[in-house]
Amino acid sequence: MYELTMLQGALRSGVADRPSVFELFGRRLPGSRRFGVVAGTGRLLDAIEAFTFTDDQISFLHRTGIVDDDTLDYLRGYRFSGTIRGYAEGECYFAGSPLLTVEGSFAEACIIETLALSIYNYDCAVASAASRMTMAAHGRPCIDFGARRTHEHAAVAAARAAVVGGFAGTSNLEAGLVHGIPTFGTSAHSFTLVHDTEQEAFAAQVASLGTGTTVLVDTYDVAAGVERAVAAARAAGGELGAVRLDSGDLVAGAFQVRSQLDALGATSTRITVTSDLDEYAIAGLGAAPVDFYGVGTQLVTGSGHPTAALVYKLVEREGRHGRRQEVAKRSSGGKATVGGRKWAGRVLDDSGTAVEELVVSCTAHEQGEAALRQAGARPLQVTLVRDGMIVEEHRGTAALEAAAQRHQASRAELPYDAWRLSEGEPALPTRLVSLEDLPAQPASAALGEPPVRP
Amino acid sequence: MYELTMLQGALRSGVADRPSVFELFGRRLPGSRRFGVVAGTGRLLDAIEAFTFTDDQISFLHRTGIVDDDTLDYLRGYRFSGTIRGYAEGECYFAGSPLLTVEGSFAEACIIETLALSIYNYDCAVASAASRMTMAAHGRPCIDFGARRTHEHAAVAAARAAVVGGFAGTSNLEAGLVHGIPTFGTSAHSFTLVHDTEQEAFAAQVASLGTGTTVLVDTYDVAAGVERAVAAARAAGGELGAVRLDSGDLVAGAFQVRSQLDALGATSTRITVTSDLDEYAIAGLGAAPVDFYGVGTQLVTGSGHPTAALVYKLVEREGRHGRRQEVAKRSSGGKATVGGRKWAGRVLDDSGTAVEELVVSCTAHEQGEAALRQAGARPLQVTLVRDGMIVEEHRGTAALEAAAQRHQASRAELPYDAWRLSEGEPALPTRLVSLEDLPAQPASAALGEPPVRP
Repeated sequence: MYELTMLQGALRSGVADRPSVFELFGRRLPGSRRFGVVAGTGRLLDAIEAFTFTDDQISFLHRTGIVDDDTLDYLRGYRFSGTIRGYAEGECYFAGSPLLTVEGSFAEACIIETLALSIYNYDCAVASAASRMTMAAHGRPCIDFGARRTHEHAAVAAARAAVVGGFAGTSNLEAGLVHGIPTFGTSAHSFTLVHDTEQEAFAAQVASLGTGTTVLVDTYDVAAGVERAVAAARAAGGELGAVRLDSGDLVAGAFQVRSQLDALGATSTRITVTSDLDEYAIAGLGAAPVDFYGVGTQLVTGSGHPTAALVYKLVEREGRHGRRQEVAKRSSGGKATVGGRKWAGRVLDDSGTAVEELVVSCTAHEQGEAALRQAGARPLQVTLVRDGMIVEEHRGTAALEAAAQRHQASRAELPYDAWRLSEGEPALPTRLVSLEDLPAQPASAALGEPPVRP
Repeated sequence: MYELTMLQGALRSGVADRPSVFELFGRRLPGSRRFGVVAGTGRLLDAIEAFTFTDDQISFLHRTGIVDDDTLDYLRGYRFSGTIRGYAEGECYFAGSPLLTVEGSFAEACIIETLALSIYNYDCAVASAASRMTMAAHGRPCIDFGARRTHEHAAVAAARAAVVGGFAGTSNLEAGLVHGIPTFGTSAHSFTLVHDTEQEAFAAQVASLGTGTTVLVDTYDVAAGVERAVAAARAAGGELGAVRLDSGDLVAGAFQVRSQLDALGATSTRITVTSDLDEYAIAGLGAAPVDFYGVGTQLVTGSGHPTAALVYKLVEREGRHGRRQEVAKRSSGGKATVGGRKWAGRVLDDSGTAVEELVVSCTAHEQGEAALRQAGARPLQVTLVRDGMIVEEHRGTAALEAAAQRHQASRAELPYDAWRLSEGEPALPTRLVSLEDLPAQPASAALGEPPVRP
């Protein structure tokens, strides 16, 4: 609501057209995490293109008197026509990283605040949790089974963000349809229970889905379930694909089931575990003979940090005399902001390890990029929307796959500290400087000695 | 995905048509809360009515080979035709309370599992957090400002669930449009910053929105902001509606601003506080001169418990010889379930205080209700869907208002323990009995002595 009433106020006072720059960033990483993961970019681009006001919405605003007729006229014709630059999806980010830089009139940039924040706050939270889980899994595939543990539409976004963070797929078919994500399914206890015996249930599943299916073996007795599942597959002429364990102590369970499977000669049958997994539980299962992790609640709720706590702030706008001015909130309590548009780059040492997030406050495009180059930093911002036109390479299924690869590369660049699951300092310090602070010298001198690697 | 592959398996093995009963419940309350709040009922009823498979979805399932042609034929004609009973929206609930009882064929009841769980898990989590916040606010209005801190569609559901938990309104206009919830707005720091001076910004806001508006006073210096805001309203011929504080120590800030407002004679100008509020922060502001609480992150993320951890389990179905049978998962790790359809009632003592959640496991409708009556319990389940037809009184704006009132009444019935914000035991114990365990005696004797009230 406040976006629209601010729009009305700005239209009346004549500042609605002022060229403005908003930035989307986090003051700090949530919960002493080591890094954050950019996600939601492709979704945001779709949403910005679709962001117009329907007749129903205009009539609601009129009926309730929330805004006046001039404002309704503006909204009827609304379409974002500005430019957005930002971190490419999948990139790691740190405190103060300018994830999005939105340029446009105050009016058009101010009213996408909630849209941009809600998408980024949720998707980055999930992708950041997903990345910690895939780190803990050390290459074993993680699969999203969280559809039922969050809002029905959020679940679809979560499946997508999980892929950015390294997940192999999802049980969410809508995410498969909309985002082209590989889908995986098992079966529930109800499938076993609706049959008269476990044996009949397993035979039915194998008959329907083939011997490669994943059978849930813990409805009654696990050892008996494993034996029946293997027998059902063999009766159908094959070896069972996998069994799923969803209760009990999963470490002990996995060892027991593996040795039972091996004793039965079912050495190719794999083990999927589920049951309130998070990155710590996954790490705890590292030595156990587990092949797949199915993750639900903790993935879709950000594993303790369900929002990325990103904010959207006006940092620059044209003033009374047509002059560009940096602006910033100056109040107390750690919520003050730093004015001016920012240019971000990642500084690497000679071994290719990232050592610093360099953020240069600088109004001019060319000077900002030049300052990063001079500091030897890899520029982090790309153009996502140019004069209202979406840059197509940043959305769609191919963009999602590219984001997942980009995240692997970006994470691999971080110092080993990034891989620690414990709470602590960010893996990279953020150095926020204004252009004038950067001496016109070679990068190494400008940056001083890089931090010592652990 | 597993719902559809289970459906395929059940169609093949011939059990898809078996009359079945699923229950949706929580094994325990999340995080040692004192009670949970039922929310999402109206949304679920809309969603069940709309739950069909589109051509796009069918063609995706066909293209990917996820299910076979027989299953696609079933899905093309899918429409839920069963019966759902459940707790009325707004009712308090406890461990094991059967929030929904879904009767239908195995096929039709099994494939709404994820839909029902995702709606209830999210909405109940938000409503439960909201109720704790409105308890802590002791009658001061709480307003949802959380749209930006969760998925864009989840935010609309959160605004609605917050109303069930006692919130007065939302800043989310879509929630105003879709659910008829009162909307409230203030302004952001960017509105102040886009103007050349704070004075001009406040004048513009008052000119546009009237003197009754809420002005954000902490962009630069709070004391100067308050003075300018009051002056802007008076210049427009009125007294300012409210000021908003969004940073710093809110307790000290509220006292300072109140005394400044009073000294300026602006005794009718009220104070709204925002800034990472949760139920504990709200309680901590109890003695401060605050008039409204604006709550964001902690509301839409369930204040530490972003999912209600509800599950959906098959408890009863027809077996091979057409006989009704209770079924239950028997495995280890606290995840075993109790078979048989359940009837729930709240037992009150003579003073009208609730003392027990009585849950009677009993296959027959009449006997279950009779057992509750005999125990002197208020029956908690109502019919929400009858043979596929939605019971209209349980959805829509009037139903939402009724749910909010119902929650107030249900919460007022609980023992004082329910009002404690600390972690601890549920405010009511759940007594799960089978029909045979209940002696055919008057309620008082059957239940023994009610627990001592605190």
